[in-house]
Amino acid sequence: MKDYLKRDEWQIIEEGFHPEHNRITESIFSLGNGRMGQRANFEEEYSGDTHLGSYIAGVYYPDKTRVGWWKNGYPEYFAKVLNAPSWIGIHIYIDDEPLDLAQCKVEKFVRLLNMKEGFLQRSCMITMHDGRQLTIHSKRFCSLSDAEVGAIRYAITPINFSGDIEVMFPVDVDVKNRDANYDEKFWEEITRKITPGHVIITAETRKTFFHVCTAIAWSVYQDGTALTLKPETVQRKKWAAHKITFSVEQGKETVIYKYATVLSSLNYPKDQLIQFAEVKVDGIKKMGFELLLKNHSQVWTNKWLESDITIEGDVAAQQGIRFNIFQLHQTYTGDDERFNIGPKGFTGEKYGGSTYWDTEAYCLPFYLGTAEQRVPRNLLMYRYKHLQKAIENAEKLGFKNGAALYPMVTMNGEECHNEWEITFEEIHRNGAIAYAIYDYVRYTGDKDYLLEYGLDVLIAISRFWAQRVNYSEDKKKYVILGVTGPNEYENNVNNNWYTNYLAKWTLTYTLESLHYMKDQDEKRFAHLVNQLHFKKEEEQHWNDIIANLYFPEDEKRNVFLQQDGFLDKELITVSQLSPGNRPINQKWSWDRILRSCFIKQADVLQGLYFFEEHFDEATHKRNFDFYEPMTVHESSLSPCVHVILASKLGYREKAYELYLRTSRLDIDDYNNDTEDGCHITSMAGTWMAIVKGFGGMRVKDDTLHFNPFIPAQWDSYSFKVEFRRRVIKVRIAKGKIEATLQSGEPLTIVVAGKQKKLQPSELLSEVL
Amino acid sequence: MKDYLKRDEWQIIEEGFHPEHNRITESIFSLGNGRMGQRANFEEEYSGDTHLGSYIAGVYYPDKTRVGWWKNGYPEYFAKVLNAPSWIGIHIYIDDEPLDLAQCKVEKFVRLLNMKEGFLQRSCMITMHDGRQLTIHSKRFCSLSDAEVGAIRYAITPINFSGDIEVMFPVDVDVKNRDANYDEKFWEEITRKITPGHVIITAETRKTFFHVCTAIAWSVYQDGTALTLKPETVQRKKWAAHKITFSVEQGKETVIYKYATVLSSLNYPKDQLIQFAEVKVDGIKKMGFELLLKNHSQVWTNKWLESDITIEGDVAAQQGIRFNIFQLHQTYTGDDERFNIGPKGFTGEKYGGSTYWDTEAYCLPFYLGTAEQRVPRNLLMYRYKHLQKAIENAEKLGFKNGAALYPMVTMNGEECHNEWEITFEEIHRNGAIAYAIYDYVRYTGDKDYLLEYGLDVLIAISRFWAQRVNYSEDKKKYVILGVTGPNEYENNVNNNWYTNYLAKWTLTYTLESLHYMKDQDEKRFAHLVNQLHFKKEEEQHWNDIIANLYFPEDEKRNVFLQQDGFLDKELITVSQLSPGNRPINQKWSWDRILRSCFIKQADVLQGLYFFEEHFDEATHKRNFDFYEPMTVHESSLSPCVHVILASKLGYREKAYELYLRTSRLDIDDYNNDTEDGCHITSMAGTWMAIVKGFGGMRVKDDTLHFNPFIPAQWDSYSFKVEFRRRVIKVRIAKGKIEATLQSGEPLTIVVAGKQKKLQPSELLSEVL
Repeated sequence: MKDYLKRDEWQIIEEGFHPEHNRITESIFSLGNGRMGQRANFEEEYSGDTHLGSYIAGVYYPDKTRVGWWKNGYPEYFAKVLNAPSWIGIHIYIDDEPLDLAQCKVEKFVRLLNMKEGFLQRSCMITMHDGRQLTIHSKRFCSLSDAEVGAIRYAITPINFSGDIEVMFPVDVDVKNRDANYDEKFWEEITRKITPGHVIITAETRKTFFHVCTAIAWSVYQDGTALTLKPETVQRKKWAAHKITFSVEQGKETVIYKYATVLSSLNYPKDQLIQFAEVKVDGIKKMGFELLLKNHSQVWTNKWLESDITIEGDVAAQQGIRFNIFQLHQTYTGDDERFNIGPKGFTGEKYGGSTYWDTEAYCLPFYLGTAEQRVPRNLLMYRYKHLQKAIENAEKLGFKNGAALYPMVTMNGEECHNEWEITFEEIHRNGAIAYAIYDYVRYTGDKDYLLEYGLDVLIAISRFWAQRVNYSEDKKKYVILGVTGPNEYENNVNNNWYTNYLAKWTLTYTLESLHYMKDQDEKRFAHLVNQLHFKKEEEQHWNDIIANLYFPEDEKRNVFLQQDGFLDKELITVSQLSPGNRPINQKWSWDRILRSCFIKQADVLQGLYFFEEHFDEATHKRNFDFYEPMTVHESSLSPCVHVILASKLGYREKAYELYLRTSRLDIDDYNNDTEDGCHITSMAGTWMAIVKGFGGMRVKDDTLHFNPFIPAQWDSYSFKVEFRRRVIKVRIAKGKIEATLQSGEPLTIVVAGKQKKLQPSELLSEVL
Repeated sequence: MKDYLKRDEWQIIEEGFHPEHNRITESIFSLGNGRMGQRANFEEEYSGDTHLGSYIAGVYYPDKTRVGWWKNGYPEYFAKVLNAPSWIGIHIYIDDEPLDLAQCKVEKFVRLLNMKEGFLQRSCMITMHDGRQLTIHSKRFCSLSDAEVGAIRYAITPINFSGDIEVMFPVDVDVKNRDANYDEKFWEEITRKITPGHVIITAETRKTFFHVCTAIAWSVYQDGTALTLKPETVQRKKWAAHKITFSVEQGKETVIYKYATVLSSLNYPKDQLIQFAEVKVDGIKKMGFELLLKNHSQVWTNKWLESDITIEGDVAAQQGIRFNIFQLHQTYTGDDERFNIGPKGFTGEKYGGSTYWDTEAYCLPFYLGTAEQRVPRNLLMYRYKHLQKAIENAEKLGFKNGAALYPMVTMNGEECHNEWEITFEEIHRNGAIAYAIYDYVRYTGDKDYLLEYGLDVLIAISRFWAQRVNYSEDKKKYVILGVTGPNEYENNVNNNWYTNYLAKWTLTYTLESLHYMKDQDEKRFAHLVNQLHFKKEEEQHWNDIIANLYFPEDEKRNVFLQQDGFLDKELITVSQLSPGNRPINQKWSWDRILRSCFIKQADVLQGLYFFEEHFDEATHKRNFDFYEPMTVHESSLSPCVHVILASKLGYREKAYELYLRTSRLDIDDYNNDTEDGCHITSMAGTWMAIVKGFGGMRVKDDTLHFNPFIPAQWDSYSFKVEFRRRVIKVRIAKGKIEATLQSGEPLTIVVAGKQKKLQPSELLSEVL
């Protein structure tokens, strides 16, 4: 755990330069706007420890490196998130000496992430080798109001000298991935265009042939007046820059602006990229930095209005939760249904492909609760649009008749992960995608989505389950063999309770939805059934599976069993492990982990969380009491589900303890891996931990319920939820809950079991 | 299946050039001498389809390419068999046109592997572009009498022209592996020395820093007289050659000899390699081709005397079995205890590391039966010498107190394979290594080996088993969780019957052996027990495990169960699969294979084969009848064990059918993969299928038993076995068995249940 960043309600602050933590800081202070982003690298050249990283949503590379026993059915490639061309460079030279913070004395230094307005800021005072001193104030952002735009304001003031300064404004497409084998590079330059007004390079990814065009322009101001400067051009392989020289006067500030636009062939014809980029970069330069920033900050203001969580009495917790919300909004805006939520967002390149089941199981509730309905709907549409590819993926694995298996990891609907125990066996993801439809419809009441898109997906997934089971003559039951559950510390197990439960539930929900459709619109139903060749026998078969699917249980303890044979393990608790054994995924070999009872993340408990209402509280308690002590929470996704269950069961200290692990996971570098990037998808879990855990929010029968408590350490906390075209603010203080309807029509909610009507601008206050 | 090679009792013959099968032919016609070898590439340059391959025992490369989720405990590298410097080139130019069979018209062509004397021969007549015709007769071998030596006789005769011919004699260290990622090269040149008499290059492997010195010399004869020629030197990067030019006369043969020696830093100080090589290559050139060949062929004559199998009435079967024996002898000679039996020998580069459990489970019986005792003993010593590394390997996985886990794949005792389900879980290999000690002692009676070396290995392996089990409170038995059995179509299963049986047996045999030692030599016993800290409590714990280890069984069918949960599978037979599904490892995705009942190779049946005497015949029959129909035999190692069991059970047609699959596997390219190299280790299984299967050979109570039958398709077959300093020839014809003692003292054997005394030069004949 690290503790070098200053606590503040709205900002993350590095005071004093910590080069030893630079990669961590670069991750935490990353900027993004759903379309592109980059780590908090310096604008100048930096020869110290750094991980340069720029990323563009949807631009990936298919790594075909093969090792080991290549299994039939593996995808052709493992998708890599690509380090993309960089537009942020502002390279400064004074008397030919580059300004490089690793080579100067850094006298003062503050790096700051302003989460309220969404920019990265840095102020420093440095002394160069020859004794010259100067200050730098830089500020940059990736615009949320125009996702193709980035801008930097970079002010430089000589303290004890006057003279000439040389500045280069590069576009750099000579980038590489840190995780590349053999230092492979993935970009080829296609064209460059350099005019006195801009530097533009179009680069192409190898194999995937994405084109990305990066155009930059700049201006320099002294005393409020733009300097007229004729740039020289400096050209290298895959790199080009404007170079200018101007005089600076001791004590006087020069302000440099760099404007960039990044366009890709995802949105423009390849042959017109340069023209569009040229026009665009001219346009934004004309608008100017301040106006661009104002438009951008306005979007943030609105986002915070919808999704802020406040915590009184605990600055660290306040900073943590805002950081999580901030990064989630930076990663996914819901504007483009082709994109999704990468586990590292725009903060690092680890984990390859961009979409995991994290989206449906952990992120969807956040966007349901904090964004307009189109945002979570686009997350669902992403999967709907990939349905055909999911069907093809299932066909590759031998399934027929329109059965779909969604990929474990994907960039474009194709599976792009190749570890058999995950790719082929972690099929519970398919259930989470079905569940997300249910979750969305339950929350929004948007049953039209179900009829128009959802049922196609549900039927295809149900067909998968119906073919994936087999009948065990020995058990006289249907079984599901050879799976990996959410607890990835078990592989290739039989009858994972969670997976089996999801399978049964999907079949049931699909049939219910089909009957609903029949009731609503018989013609439409007939059309669908005909189009998908859905026959009575198929329904009968599904019903037979629903009635006869096997679920492992321990009759003695009266708990559900994670899988067949679980009781053969040595059943010990995490507390019995000496600290030297943890985290077990770094200390133990894989086989030892596999045969141990230790659980990486909620598995049976994930099922209880999803299907809370199917089980009574005693069942919840027995299973929580059995599994929680064996759970090591070595996935960042793990604690949030436990927080929600612990909160429900009244284990408040446990709930708070687990919450703490998630909320400042990256800011405190809890797992020693933030240098690789932030844990974006788990951040949504942190939001859930507060809203669904502490706040006890549920939607039942089209009604919002709150059943909250407040951690002893806090004075109060508040959150807002979007719910069916209303924004409701909820505040919980010691002994009371307050709710206000901030926008939308009056609404009845249930607070601690009591129905209450919320009226506009009326404060509802209830004693707890 | 291919059928382009001519059948012959002692030779493999390609008549007429088949460039479309060239890679296959190159594999089949490979030469080797236990120390080095190469594929049957042409001496001339060849621009057609070819897989150039030279290999040197013990010289490998650690590939560190990483993909996917890198598990804690994985080895640092995956060892690659390295394509090594090539000495075989004789490049011919006529009027600057290279002689290249892909660019000429090949009028006549015969390529031939002479297995009796151990050489590769080629005769061809070609027409070049300009109409010039010539014949080539080449013959080459890797000497078995001096494993550092190779030689080529290459005769060339112009048919319709006279004129100058240019010849280059290269040493080529610019080689690469076909399976390298990113075309990586693994050799760096260190030094070269070129004199008028030789070309010598020393090259070093990257990372492992092996030095290999290749020295060549040559001579040219016309009319029986050596020409005096001054060579030019041609030098390129990682390549050097002598170039000579001489005149040839129409119809007159010129004979070219190329001599090579290949020395490595495994046997010589690096700084003296060149001197040794220079002296050596001069020496062998002085000896001359014919004498070298004579010495080499003499070794083959002796090998065939010891190990030949004859089959009358079936040339294809005769050729097949001799080919298998030939390749086994080419791969491993038993002269060097650092080496072992690579799955592809010197015929290809697939499968990386060189030693698998194949050696102990499949190859040892061949060397026990056909070679002097030192040869199988060296195979055991190989593992004994790696004991410390096996202990370290187990420590990496969390085992203590001198427990050993031998690697799944190794070059030097370290694990060098990184797929968790194999590396960490295929622990039955440890049992096979213990079993090999028992098998060796049973066959040879060499109990001294057991006392001197074997017990150390047995105790370390037993300690592994004792720590690897855990006690299941649920079953009230010890269990072994998370393993992969010999049937690799199941991964991470619990209580694999075969593995559990081996574990129990190892513990039992180790304790028996300890008691034997105590009886024999109390002092030595005390020393060992003291040295290894073997305490009474450890023995008690082992006995507790022996008494309470769990074995899955099907009470209804009265068969052993391959693993827990096996009966949940859909139990169908291979015959119920339509042909389009097979081989399932090419047609099905991995998850489908895993959850199917289909068995890659003997698993429960491997246990019945190893421990035949522990079970009655009815048990054998029930289990064979249950498992054989579900076995797809998609490992080349599979059929032999089934042949032995089927033979024992009187399923003669089944036995013969399965035998056919193995014996000509490579010659007929049965699995479409011979182009990658030959299946060397499974060749020993073919020998076992005849000797232990059809011949019914067993060793019980220090006595050889034969209980033979003859396949209906054969007139007779015979084999020889080495047994305790005797050579016994056994011949089975229709209705009778004959045995003769070819060397050694008189011996009592058991033939078809009857004790018989074998006297020198007396024919024992028994009616069957």
